Amino acid sequence: MNVGSQHFRTIWLKPDDETVVQLIDQRFLPHRFVIEEVGTVEQMATAIRDMHVRGAGLIGASAGYGMYLAAVKAAARPAGEIDEHLSRAAAQLKATRPTAVNLSWAIERQLRNIAKGTNAKEKVALALRTARSIADEDADHCRMIGQHGFELIRQIARKKAGKFAAVNPSGRTAGGPINVLTHCNAGWLAFVDHGSATAPIYASHDRGLPVHVWVAETRPRNQGSKLTAWELGQHGVPHTIVADSAAGHLMQRGAVDLVIVGTDRTTITGDVANKIGTYLKALAAKANDVPFYVALPSSSFDWKLRDGLKEIPIEQRSPEEVKKADGWFEGQMVEVRVAPQESPATNYGFDVTPGYLVTGLITERGVCEANEKSIRALFPEQMR
Amino acid sequence: MNVGSQHFRTIWLKPDDETVVQLIDQRFLPHRFVIEEVGTVEQMATAIRDMHVRGAGLIGASAGYGMYLAAVKAAARPAGEIDEHLSRAAAQLKATRPTAVNLSWAIERQLRNIAKGTNAKEKVALALRTARSIADEDADHCRMIGQHGFELIRQIARKKAGKFAAVNPSGRTAGGPINVLTHCNAGWLAFVDHGSATAPIYASHDRGLPVHVWVAETRPRNQGSKLTAWELGQHGVPHTIVADSAAGHLMQRGAVDLVIVGTDRTTITGDVANKIGTYLKALAAKANDVPFYVALPSSSFDWKLRDGLKEIPIEQRSPEEVKKADGWFEGQMVEVRVAPQESPATNYGFDVTPGYLVTGLITERGVCEANEKSIRALFPEQMR
Repeated sequence: MNVGSQHFRTIWLKPDDETVVQLIDQRFLPHRFVIEEVGTVEQMATAIRDMHVRGAGLIGASAGYGMYLAAVKAAARPAGEIDEHLSRAAAQLKATRPTAVNLSWAIERQLRNIAKGTNAKEKVALALRTARSIADEDADHCRMIGQHGFELIRQIARKKAGKFAAVNPSGRTAGGPINVLTHCNAGWLAFVDHGSATAPIYASHDRGLPVHVWVAETRPRNQGSKLTAWELGQHGVPHTIVADSAAGHLMQRGAVDLVIVGTDRTTITGDVANKIGTYLKALAAKANDVPFYVALPSSSFDWKLRDGLKEIPIEQRSPEEVKKADGWFEGQMVEVRVAPQESPATNYGFDVTPGYLVTGLITERGVCEANEKSIRALFPEQMR
Repeated sequence: MNVGSQHFRTIWLKPDDETVVQLIDQRFLPHRFVIEEVGTVEQMATAIRDMHVRGAGLIGASAGYGMYLAAVKAAARPAGEIDEHLSRAAAQLKATRPTAVNLSWAIERQLRNIAKGTNAKEKVALALRTARSIADEDADHCRMIGQHGFELIRQIARKKAGKFAAVNPSGRTAGGPINVLTHCNAGWLAFVDHGSATAPIYASHDRGLPVHVWVAETRPRNQGSKLTAWELGQHGVPHTIVADSAAGHLMQRGAVDLVIVGTDRTTITGDVANKIGTYLKALAAKANDVPFYVALPSSSFDWKLRDGLKEIPIEQRSPEEVKKADGWFEGQMVEVRVAPQESPATNYGFDVTPGYLVTGLITERGVCEANEKSIRALFPEQMR
């Protein structure tokens, strides 16, 4: 999507030197827009581990490009050492974020494809093609989510305009923009382009359907106020940041037309693991008759799980994240301590929203209900 | 309650000089414990306006002492000027926090009582007695809320122990401590002593009934992580800070035995206005069968209101509070900017929890249901 008025992906090959990968170093957002050049698999491992890049889709694409960089370096070695070099690189990348499913998936795909090459040059070419495919497919799936989500938002807009048309028959934008509430960052910064939860928003905005986004700040790491607000702002989408706690009040007062969030893992029965706080928003949506959608590429389904509450492990992160806040102060990023030094804190990273609270899932193949029958109908090849 | 091992109220007369009031300057908590000396009504007005003191009960007590300080100064003037001096002081204090109900209530009570004095000395004595009464009554009402709330927690503890006793018949602490979740600061720092939501917690802890408190940080001003965590820690009550978003997950996993929050204003039908985020917690409590209590001195009832959602105005505070966070950095308090400078934010201060989500109200007279019949039965003198 756009930064300023220029189109960017989150990761790409350097235009004048295809042995170098460029990526947006997200650690400095929203305060500074920094492009990092990555020339070795070691540097890519650092970028993934230290969260210069984050988000399921982008981690997969970064690993793909990391393996390509490893292939470039391996090609300069004696032929007998290439495979060993590549498997060392694979191990190094896999160790960076042990729970990221897309990471090992991208690495395995690279190893499988590179192995088809009979010489160093072929292996490099295959690695490049695979890295590009992984990134392009990610962007393409998100684009499709955007198309399906746009249809859905258009329906909601028609219904809203219809309600207002009874009072004011003047036109199609009656009732103002469609208000979408989102949580955390399931934006293009978490993927290669478009994002998952944001894709329907960008698609609507780009086609002239007026949308306004309530961005929940998403404590403790503030991915909402730091990343989602920044990317929406850069692309020109009207938005307003609110405290996570404000979601219920907004829905109660009719200020939200639909909720769209992303997911880290969704069971085949439609239970949705996502950033902590998603469940509270789903409860408020149910209580106030607000449609609650989850946008996901099908790679986020875990086809083995049936009970999200019992089977999805919830990561506990450092308590310090809850006791502190970081931000911009006098030209630098600093971390301030908010809470008493002696007070303990607990930091659950995710929660699970049961499928019965989810109105629908927006995937690259279309929209389905959050239950096994509907999910399997859309992905019949996953039938057991 | 205790700070270190010493008992404190939030406001008191200086022991060796009764023309000076001392109070805890809460702006520096939890980082520094600062006692401020206030010798004039002007200084007291500043302390209220700039939030050295905050919270309904404490604002009332501060206004009471402020009028006493005004009476001391007025007594040094010619007899004919005393009343004018006092009414100027009253106007000055009233202007500090226009929406605080307890403020004007305390000032009017002082003016009424002081007027009974026939000379300067009598007026000062009446002002002192009234200031003390206002503070003592506030502390006493909170103490009574603690007693009634303690009975309630004891019942819940027995039920919990009973459940565990079936498995483990060893004793009364079976099942671990009672886990109470609270939001914002309805603690002793918001009153003169004990607090409202915290009073049952302190009463239980002091009587040896083990409690553990989940403290929601309460963005954007973090009264939970700054004030509630600090006061519980100083009094020795086990507690854990969590992001506001974690409340649903905790209840879903059975980690909360009851919720107790305070209120800024409660209608006669039991609708509860309280810090933004209270409504989401009430929804999660309902969905997970967790008792949800609101603790309040009866001065927080608005006997004129019947529909909280329609009739209670919701204050919108500065958007900057949402875009920023303040805390301790290198030995000083600093404010960091978290969000993009250009992004708008909205900052609703409160939300309204409908009475049907509230299990009960804990008042100084006892516990009642959150509906008109039950409230009027406890406060029959409010019958129209």
